[in-house]
Parts: sequence; C-alpha cells; structure tokens
Amino acid sequence: MSKNLTSRSEDYSKWYNELVVKADLAQNSAVRGCMVIKPYGYAIWEKMQAELDRMFKETGHQNAYFPLFVPKSLFEAEEKNAEGFAKECAVVTHYRLQNDPDNPGKLRVDPEAKLEEELVVRPTSEAIIWSTYKGWIQSYRDLPLLINQWANVVRWEMRTRLFLRTAEFLWQEGHTAHATKAEAITEAELMNNVYADFAENFMAIPVIKGTKTESERFAGADETYCIEALMQDGKALQAGTSHFLGQNFAKAFDVKFASSEGTQEYVWATSWGVSTRLMGALIMTHSDDQGLVLPPNLAPNQVVIVPIYKGAEQLEELSATVQGIMKNLRALGVTVKYDDRDTYRPGAKFAQHELQGVPLRIAIGARDLANGTVELARRDTLTKESIALEGLEQHIKALLEEIQQSLFDKSKSYRDDHITAVDTFDEFKKVLKNKGGFISAHWDGTSETEEKIKELTKATIRCIPMDYKEEEGKCVLTGNSSSRRVLFAKAY
Amino acid sequence: MSKNLTSRSEDYSKWYNELVVKADLAQNSAVRGCMVIKPYGYAIWEKMQAELDRMFKETGHQNAYFPLFVPKSLFEAEEKNAEGFAKECAVVTHYRLQNDPDNPGKLRVDPEAKLEEELVVRPTSEAIIWSTYKGWIQSYRDLPLLINQWANVVRWEMRTRLFLRTAEFLWQEGHTAHATKAEAITEAELMNNVYADFAENFMAIPVIKGTKTESERFAGADETYCIEALMQDGKALQAGTSHFLGQNFAKAFDVKFASSEGTQEYVWATSWGVSTRLMGALIMTHSDDQGLVLPPNLAPNQVVIVPIYKGAEQLEELSATVQGIMKNLRALGVTVKYDDRDTYRPGAKFAQHELQGVPLRIAIGARDLANGTVELARRDTLTKESIALEGLEQHIKALLEEIQQSLFDKSKSYRDDHITAVDTFDEFKKVLKNKGGFISAHWDGTSETEEKIKELTKATIRCIPMDYKEEEGKCVLTGNSSSRRVLFAKAY
Repeated sequence: MSKNLTSRSEDYSKWYNELVVKADLAQNSAVRGCMVIKPYGYAIWEKMQAELDRMFKETGHQNAYFPLFVPKSLFEAEEKNAEGFAKECAVVTHYRLQNDPDNPGKLRVDPEAKLEEELVVRPTSEAIIWSTYKGWIQSYRDLPLLINQWANVVRWEMRTRLFLRTAEFLWQEGHTAHATKAEAITEAELMNNVYADFAENFMAIPVIKGTKTESERFAGADETYCIEALMQDGKALQAGTSHFLGQNFAKAFDVKFASSEGTQEYVWATSWGVSTRLMGALIMTHSDDQGLVLPPNLAPNQVVIVPIYKGAEQLEELSATVQGIMKNLRALGVTVKYDDRDTYRPGAKFAQHELQGVPLRIAIGARDLANGTVELARRDTLTKESIALEGLEQHIKALLEEIQQSLFDKSKSYRDDHITAVDTFDEFKKVLKNKGGFISAHWDGTSETEEKIKELTKATIRCIPMDYKEEEGKCVLTGNSSSRRVLFAKAY
Repeated sequence: MSKNLTSRSEDYSKWYNELVVKADLAQNSAVRGCMVIKPYGYAIWEKMQAELDRMFKETGHQNAYFPLFVPKSLFEAEEKNAEGFAKECAVVTHYRLQNDPDNPGKLRVDPEAKLEEELVVRPTSEAIIWSTYKGWIQSYRDLPLLINQWANVVRWEMRTRLFLRTAEFLWQEGHTAHATKAEAITEAELMNNVYADFAENFMAIPVIKGTKTESERFAGADETYCIEALMQDGKALQAGTSHFLGQNFAKAFDVKFASSEGTQEYVWATSWGVSTRLMGALIMTHSDDQGLVLPPNLAPNQVVIVPIYKGAEQLEELSATVQGIMKNLRALGVTVKYDDRDTYRPGAKFAQHELQGVPLRIAIGARDLANGTVELARRDTLTKESIALEGLEQHIKALLEEIQQSLFDKSKSYRDDHITAVDTFDEFKKVLKNKGGFISAHWDGTSETEEKIKELTKATIRCIPMDYKEEEGKCVLTGNSSSRRVLFAKAY
C-alpha cells in the first residue's frame, strides 16, 4: 500500500480523492459515476447503519422495503418532485437481451421486449411509497405510520466524486404519515435532531441545524430541515435532511383517512435521509496528511497489535501475551485486531494502519516483553508512549473515549472559528476568499438575491439556523431590510 | 385484520398467497412482479440477515458493495452466464426524462439522453465483481479474497409469486477468489454447510445437502451445491446454493495472480447466495390453517402480552405487573411486546397475533392478577394453560427453546416420511401422484433422461445428495446402469 498522499494545503480535492482510494475505502467502477465500496469502507458504513438503525427503532420506526423501480405514471404524479428528478434518472425500457445478429458473441436489446411503460430507477421513493400507503391508510387508527427503508438509489449526476456525489448511492429514507400538520412537523424536526445527535456524538462531527431556503428545498417539500457540517477546506457539507412534505404526496396519490370524528382528511407526510455521503463528511472532517483519522466509534478496529519478532519462537511467545491483551480488551467492548501477517514487515503494517486511521496501535517486541511494557501509538495526535502491560486495557478504554471527545472538540473549535458575521458585501467576499467557512449575514429573503449572490461568489445559503435570534439588519447585497441572519458558504 | 384463510387441504397455493398478505408480510406493488416487503415481514428478514451476517463474518468474510448496473460489454463476457440471464434482465437505455410535448403534464424518455452502452440491472454480480477483482488481485498474498454483498437483484420472471419468485428480490451474494482449485471447492462446500446449519438450527427447516445435475447448475458454474427443503404440499424448495465457478470468470475477465513460485495463474472462484425466497420456505414449512407459525429464533416478538381490562384504573394496575414481566423477560434475552392498544379489543388482538405467528401469548386480567396467574397460549400447538406468575419468565424461556426444537422435529419427521425409494417408473409416478415428496431413484446420468422424466412427470432432480452411498442399480426410466440414487421431486 503506497502512501505519499498529496497534502491538504497543496490540493485539498486531490488529497481527498487519493485518500479514499489509498485507504481502501472505495474506488470508481466500470459503470460511469458508480462506486465500489471496498470492505474497509463498507465496515465503517455498517457501523453508521447499525447506530442509525438503533436510533430509528428507539424513536418508534420500523423498516420495510419497496420496489427499486417506479413506473413513469407514478413518478410524474407529484409534479414538483417529478420535475426535480426527471433530468437525472436512469430509465429501464426493455426486459430482455438477445444475440446480436450483426455481432456474433455480442448481445443487444431485444426490440420485441420493450416495456409498455418505462420504469424509473428510484432516485428517491416518495412516489412508489405513497402509491402503496394509499392501501395502508384508511383510518386514524392506521396513523402515525413510521417507516424507514435502507436502499440504493440512482441519480444520474454528470460530475461525480467518490462518496460525495455518485450516480448510485446507499442511503436510508424514512417516510412517515400523520393525522395532523403539527405532528408531521414535529416528526421532521425530531429526525433532524436525531441526525444531529448522530453526527455529533457518534461521528464527532459538529453540525448546525437549520432550514433550507425555498430554492434549496427538496423537490416536493414544504420545508426542508438540514444539518450542515464544515470541512477542513472551509467548505460546507449538507450531512442530512428531513422534509415536511405537507399534503403534497397525499394529494398526488389520493391518500385520505377517516378521522376520529368521521371526516375524510388528507394525510400529512415527512421524509428524511442520510447517505453514504456521510463517509465523505467523516473523511474530510477528521483526516490529515498522513491519511484517515477515525473516531473510535466508527473504527472497524479500534486497536491493532503488531508483533515485532525474529523467528517463529519469538512470535509464539509474543502471541501468548497478545492473546491475553485481546481477550481483556474484548471484554471491555474494544474491537482489536492482531496483525500477525508474515507477508508484511512491521514498517509496512504501521504505514497501512496509519493510512487507514486505526485509532490506537500497539507494537510489542521481545524487549518490551522483558520490560513488561508495550509501545502505544495514537493516530489522531501521531504520538507514541511506552506503557506498562499492567493496566493497559483500562488505559486503552479510557483513551478511546478521550480520542472520541478530542476529535469532536477539535472539529468544533475549527468550525466555530470559521463562522464569521459580516455586514457588507465587500467583507462577505473578502472572508469567503481569505478564510472560507460559514458567513453569517443578513439576507432580504428573496430567491433573486440568493441567486445573485451565488452567481457573484459561488456561495449559497446553507441554512437558516434553528437557534438564531431575530435581529434587525440590512441585506448584505441589496440593503433591503432583514430580520435575521442566515449562513452562507461554498459547499460540496 | 380479517382471518378466514383458505385451508391448506383445500388449496395450498391459495392458502399461501392469502397468508402472506393477511399476516402483513408482503404484497404486490404497482411494478409488475416486484413486491413490497411490509414491516412485519421485513423484521423477520432482518433476523435472518443478522444471523447469516454473523455466520459469514465468523467464517472470515467481509462485506462490500458493488454497482447495481452491469455494462453490457461486461455482462456478455462470461458466455454461459450471459446466456443464462440475458432472457430475463431489465435494461437501462436512457438517463433522463423530459416533458412530453404531445401530453402536457406527462413525461417521456429524452431521445437525446440515450446511453452509449446499455446497462443491465444486475441479475447476479459475478461480471461486475470479477471485472473489479482484476484490479485487486496481483499476488498470492491477495488471496483468498472472501467477500459478501447484501443487495437487491432483478430477474424479469414472467410468472411471479410473493417471496418465492419475484422480479426484484433481496439477497446476499458471496464472491470469493482462491489460489487453488481444492481451496475453492472447500469454500463452496463450507458455505453450503453454513446454509444448512442456518436453515436447520435457526429456521428449524430440515434440508438435504447435495449437488445439482449439469442442467440445473448455475449458469457459469462447474458445480452447484444446494440445500433442498420439503414443503407441506410435498413439493421441494431450493433454499440456498453455493457454486464452484472454476476459472470461468477469471478467464473471462483475465484475473491472474503471481504464485509464491512466481508463475502467473488464473484465480479459482466461488459464489453463493440465499434470498428473500427463504421467507417463502419459512412460511410453507411451519404455518397452519390458522396462519403463520414462527420459530422463536425468527419471531420479531417472541411473546406478546394482552391486557384484559375494564377502564383506565384496571389497565393501570395490570400494566404495573406487565412492566415487571417484560423487564424480566428482556433480561433473559426474550423479545416481548405489550399490546395495550385501546383501539382494538382483546379478541381482535388474539386473532392478529395468531395469524402473525407470535410463538407465545400472555393474556392477563384482573381475576388472573388476584390469583397470581396468567393465561399462556402457545401458537404452534394452539394450546393454552393457566400458569403462575411466579417463575413465569424462566418457564417462557425454556418453552421457547422447546418450541424451536419441536418445530424442527415435526418438519423433519414429515420430511423423512416423504422420502420414498422406488425402483420402477410406475412406482415413481404413483408415489409422485399420491404422496409427493422426494423420490429416491436410480438415474442413468444423462440430461436426456432427466429431461424426459421432467416432461412425463414434472418432477426434476433436486439434487445428488452428499451423503448417499454408491449403490449399483438401474435407471428408473431407461433401465441403463446407475451407481447411485438421486432425489427427484416437483419443486417451487
């Protein structure tokens, strides 16, 4: 595994691309824009999935599975949603291949096997799910309906990047149905809070909760809640969204329920999702020029142990001690791997585990064994210490917690240092150019101004923060009156 | 939830279809041949997934994820595999929809957005995965490569049935690469054994391990191992397969490795999979005319508690006791649900839980409370007993284990009673017609005879059992010499 990453300061974008591939997280595939998630990357995604799934169930949601395909007639039923996704969807038109008479040994689409109605590969599942909910919801007793799906979706993006923007990606999509508007809004906010909790306390990524402006909203939503994170290059990344869909899909698919008073009412809806894009956020928040840095919560192996030995006899002696350490660590709930491969030398192993972000590395040799010590290397700080075997496991357990917290604190400190309040457009442009990060500025509330600022600076409104106070001011571009600041940034 | 299932003796096929829908497991969707897996059905599938995933990891496999789409040029690379799946594959030809000028408000495929190369929605992933493995495997040090993927796949079947045969289904597919033929065969056999272990010890479904005849082999395999189960109507169901792929895919995609001696060798391959079809096997093995019967290992709720009460005060008293029971059950690792919905009456709840196969049901009312007892109903035997609150949880824990074992024993006894050895074709037809099940008979080893028997009787060779002994005999159809018996049956 060759190292030598481009440094972040040299070319952040190149550093990211190299890191994803060299740390064995993912790679491009033979299919344009689609990635292969490699075992090491997938193991991290599995940890995210497990924790999110636990949080969804704890908040009363159940998993289900809906078809990959959306018949065109359903896809187009909710007009705004259809308009939003029509330009980037993969379409199945045939259901058979046949031998190509002009090219022996090759296949071609069988013209006789054309579908009567085209099928869209789901870019998101509101349409297929709400056409199904019509059969599930008759009465208020069927509500709320709290469903989540783990699935793959396809959006035919023209410019793709591993994890951040791919034609196919993995995600979860929650789709809930409620009797009242207030309940649906509460649900949308709740799930945005669940995402924020997950990002901060599990992924160690500080986020800002807010709502999107109309032009940045999900196609078909009345309100989009989001969590926004800040990457080390000063660009923002939307890490999760939760939508209040009003009655838009209920009306498009005629989903009504009999209320407890006996009236027929349209159902209120939410949807919410996070995707493998979170892998991109994870990588870009914590990693450094030496490679990946993983918060212990997300590390497939929290500790790796490398034996330093000459000959089978020494290895055997070391291994006996190592087995004891591993047993004790596992009893404390720590995941540990013994890297006793004889096809690689210790130096190569150190380099690999550093590149792959294993939080703690133990090296143990014959001399250590004689001294009753091991060498413990910490990935996030790149520091080493010699430490007694006695009490090692408890020390490691505590250290892992410290690392988890320290990564969050470090990211939060960086993020907080990169929220700049500005009151003029000159300042706006200067901060954006010299410092980056979030810019807190007054905006007159119109899509025209938002669009104009984007044209002039490439910065967009990332969100209208949930916890900001009303404050009289003047729009940074037009000087028109404004009652609150919003957060701008260049974004992924 | 309406009950009144068609009985198995009246119409087994109708009974199955009704049960799947009425027990809330799955339903047909707006997409031809694709199903919606409902939350209750999905919760059972999740239990299967979790256990299989654990077993795969325990045997050294890692998960990864490969693209949904297979470019046509890769799809056609391994000729037999392509030939086997070309007739039933969904093909993406376009990547955009546009407003239909002839139908305002409707969309159509954008003729400008035609793909240069068609994309096949994966019916299985050997092609895309082996084209990727080419980049992963250079040396013997990269082997073995032991990968599994959880994914959806699409096969455009013309006649579909919920879970048993659907156009889209969920599955796992293992794809491994090895340095030697012997190692690959060992892997294929190992995974078939893992499937058998899972079916018998987790799903309580007895299976016969064997190999497929040439005509029933996976397209592209040199050998297909399988596990075969027997349903209550005397038809067999293939519950899992594991393939030794030889060097077929390595040759098609030019995947070679440098051996430790420095020579360049083609890699040896296996693939193996089970799917949501297992849900069909589960349902048809254990369930009865009252509905679903679930082995405790697979029940989303092993125990359900229904309070019998009048008024809020009585409910509150009962609930205090119930909370204590639930806490104790959970401490023993038993999953339990308190069904205190006030929108349904106890009778309706009993009917629902019976239909949905909850292994144990506790009913508790004011009188029970006074007597220090509860009513405990067992789903598999449809028996009830009044039992002391004292020691209830330990009793339940033991009873769940007894039920798990009892379901297996019952199925095995039925299965063993339905393996009939015959020596003439008249007997063969008679047993097939009057009794069904597996028929153990001599076969001359030719595909012609196999095909002829299928034409005459609709029975196919389910497998050549692994543990059968060499035995001289004469083919049941042709009278030609044969050295072992094989198992015939009508099959799903």
